[in-house]
Amino acid sequence: MNILKISLVVSVLTALASCQVEESQVAEDQVEQSTAPIAESDNQIVIGVIDTINSAILDEDRDLWIYVPKSASEPENSNIKYPVMYLLDGNAHFHSVSGMIRRLSSASSRKVAPEMIIVGIPNTDRMRDLTPTHVEGTTGGGREFLDFVENEVIPYVEGNYPASTYRTFVGHSLGGLTVIDALINRSDVFSNYVAIDPSLWWDDQFLLRKAEAALTEVNFSGKSLFVAVANTMRGDMNINNVVEDTSDATRHIRSILQFSKSADAEKGNDLNFGWEYYDNDSHGSVPLIAEYDAFRFLFPWHELKGFNDYFTPESTATVTEVIDHVLAHYQNISSHFEYLVVPPEQYVDMLADAFLRSEKPDIAFAMFSMNLQNYSDSAGAHDAMGDFYVAQEDIIKAAEHFTNAIDLGGTDSKEKLEELQEQN
Amino acid sequence: MNILKISLVVSVLTALASCQVEESQVAEDQVEQSTAPIAESDNQIVIGVIDTINSAILDEDRDLWIYVPKSASEPENSNIKYPVMYLLDGNAHFHSVSGMIRRLSSASSRKVAPEMIIVGIPNTDRMRDLTPTHVEGTTGGGREFLDFVENEVIPYVEGNYPASTYRTFVGHSLGGLTVIDALINRSDVFSNYVAIDPSLWWDDQFLLRKAEAALTEVNFSGKSLFVAVANTMRGDMNINNVVEDTSDATRHIRSILQFSKSADAEKGNDLNFGWEYYDNDSHGSVPLIAEYDAFRFLFPWHELKGFNDYFTPESTATVTEVIDHVLAHYQNISSHFEYLVVPPEQYVDMLADAFLRSEKPDIAFAMFSMNLQNYSDSAGAHDAMGDFYVAQEDIIKAAEHFTNAIDLGGTDSKEKLEELQEQN
Repeated sequence: MNILKISLVVSVLTALASCQVEESQVAEDQVEQSTAPIAESDNQIVIGVIDTINSAILDEDRDLWIYVPKSASEPENSNIKYPVMYLLDGNAHFHSVSGMIRRLSSASSRKVAPEMIIVGIPNTDRMRDLTPTHVEGTTGGGREFLDFVENEVIPYVEGNYPASTYRTFVGHSLGGLTVIDALINRSDVFSNYVAIDPSLWWDDQFLLRKAEAALTEVNFSGKSLFVAVANTMRGDMNINNVVEDTSDATRHIRSILQFSKSADAEKGNDLNFGWEYYDNDSHGSVPLIAEYDAFRFLFPWHELKGFNDYFTPESTATVTEVIDHVLAHYQNISSHFEYLVVPPEQYVDMLADAFLRSEKPDIAFAMFSMNLQNYSDSAGAHDAMGDFYVAQEDIIKAAEHFTNAIDLGGTDSKEKLEELQEQN
Repeated sequence: MNILKISLVVSVLTALASCQVEESQVAEDQVEQSTAPIAESDNQIVIGVIDTINSAILDEDRDLWIYVPKSASEPENSNIKYPVMYLLDGNAHFHSVSGMIRRLSSASSRKVAPEMIIVGIPNTDRMRDLTPTHVEGTTGGGREFLDFVENEVIPYVEGNYPASTYRTFVGHSLGGLTVIDALINRSDVFSNYVAIDPSLWWDDQFLLRKAEAALTEVNFSGKSLFVAVANTMRGDMNINNVVEDTSDATRHIRSILQFSKSADAEKGNDLNFGWEYYDNDSHGSVPLIAEYDAFRFLFPWHELKGFNDYFTPESTATVTEVIDHVLAHYQNISSHFEYLVVPPEQYVDMLADAFLRSEKPDIAFAMFSMNLQNYSDSAGAHDAMGDFYVAQEDIIKAAEHFTNAIDLGGTDSKEKLEELQEQN
């Protein structure tokens, strides 16, 4: 929490002392100010890097387009591992998908999705890699491609980036077909599967038949699947009457509808299944909104809900209740990710600030303390506690925390400590 | 159209000869393959540049984050000017908004939105710039800020980038307030206004009152406004009963609802108005989906609709009908933009390919010819026509067009011409 931020918070507080919701909205806005590009060089706005691995399985070099959340570069997060989204047709969707995840996972968006590493996998021979069976040409390399993803891409990403084992697989069209292939044949590999207008018509519905069988035979406990269906019908058709049609031209949508209805009806396999039909979207325009809806479908448990009321003067919530709410929330996230997730320092700091502005210093103190406990080596956590004590006019404790922050390399705190010493 | 593309098209054609919709979907997918990053250097994925201008009005240097569509760097598009989106809180929304526009404006998405230049305007003193009146601190610099946008940013962008005068203004929260300010006080400057959960509560609803008056007094012919309303209410409230509430905590949403209902009811001002309430979104999470919905609301006339049926064997559409359809579509786009928009070469090329695959060579020929007429200096247009004649087994005309393409600097055509000469 730097001086600029304090002065903004204080000035907003003065103006709107009785109006917590408006206040917290303006305060949330201030968070935007700190949003920097992932990297800047020569004034370029950089969102990722192109890495290359040599695949023994495919016997070729393959590019990987990689986006890493900016928070990964902050020292206090050096031990954090991020969920990973593996994205087929990687180059085509990389910019929009990384932008969406970045936005949805921001503190100002209340983290309705987790921060994630995005790994886009561009194609070399798309028809070879994204088809499960041989029909003609090079088609039918799907098994080798999924071997490559499972045994080469994933180990490389998890070995070379701050990547966790919580994996999401996203594909469109033949990429969606490949996602369904992975779901039914490699359901251990990913937690989440997103199949956008998948080409289930492929090879006389080969994979559709396999998938329908798997829905009744395999247990998908802990797995989620989202399917998007575009409007690829003639103008006089709709998703009700198209199922009666028998033409080749509608086999694409009929195949997806058939699968989606089967998956919806089959409740015994524990699959967390959702699907959506997009009347206003073609096969080509549907990915963007489908990805958005998928991310909202997959992570409903990731947003910290029910906090608004705590900031009101009427709230009778105790320190313990609020802290327990936060802890239970991150325990729940941890159970989804299947590894420990500690409340993020910057998010907790933002909430603590909001409690301070709402004249609930005891809750603010507990949250700043939580950060000190979870991030004891963080200059920022000590600096924030210093700011808290300044606001409480406890100069001695403020100086202590600024000193700790300086020892840990915090540059902001030096000026603050000098200011304190001058004033007293 | 390179050899790889031909071989893919041909192989897909062989496999799916009777199945046009599936075919055209696979073909659309192939377009993805050519999607490259905006720029690559040292394997970095770059989506824009940070430019800086000195503002005499604000007496400070200001950064501008600028995304330019990749097609602008192609020689055949050297005369094209792109619509521009001016984006407040620029850095926070730049990545996601440019990603969305890039995706929605792609040929594979059937250009449901136009390709646009995005100009993000990051803040220096947000409370100063994005508030229309002085309440305390530095607030109240809105007029100077909008002077800066109108008289410094826009002329700079239109003078230094391939930017047209078709302008869209997007802002969130206090940025949304600023967008409403621009709509009512500078409706000439922008064609489209997007106000996301705008802070109309500001200064005792100062701008809300001005805006409601303007709705009845000003003619907004040719102007569009989209307003998004987030759910900022307590759990026991909804947008119906909240209007009865009188607390400060709901003044934010009540102000936006009041404005939206007034704008909806007032039909005499010719404003093209749309609004949406997002029950599942907070003030902070709403921008992404609101931007998406706004872009779909603003440009319903930009997608080339009704083309699917032309590719079916049953279609009786003549060459003239199809060409007239394309021409009328771009005439309509031109009337919206208020300047001439020529059908984009690559998009027409993609459609022509699809007609060729659908065994409608006469329509394909007319579309390749359209490109030659509109882009007579384009190596690609000649190369594509060469490919067409190869497919028609007219070796002499194919060689002519490959030769033209080579003269215009087309590197792909050289190999093709040599191949022709070897075979004959």
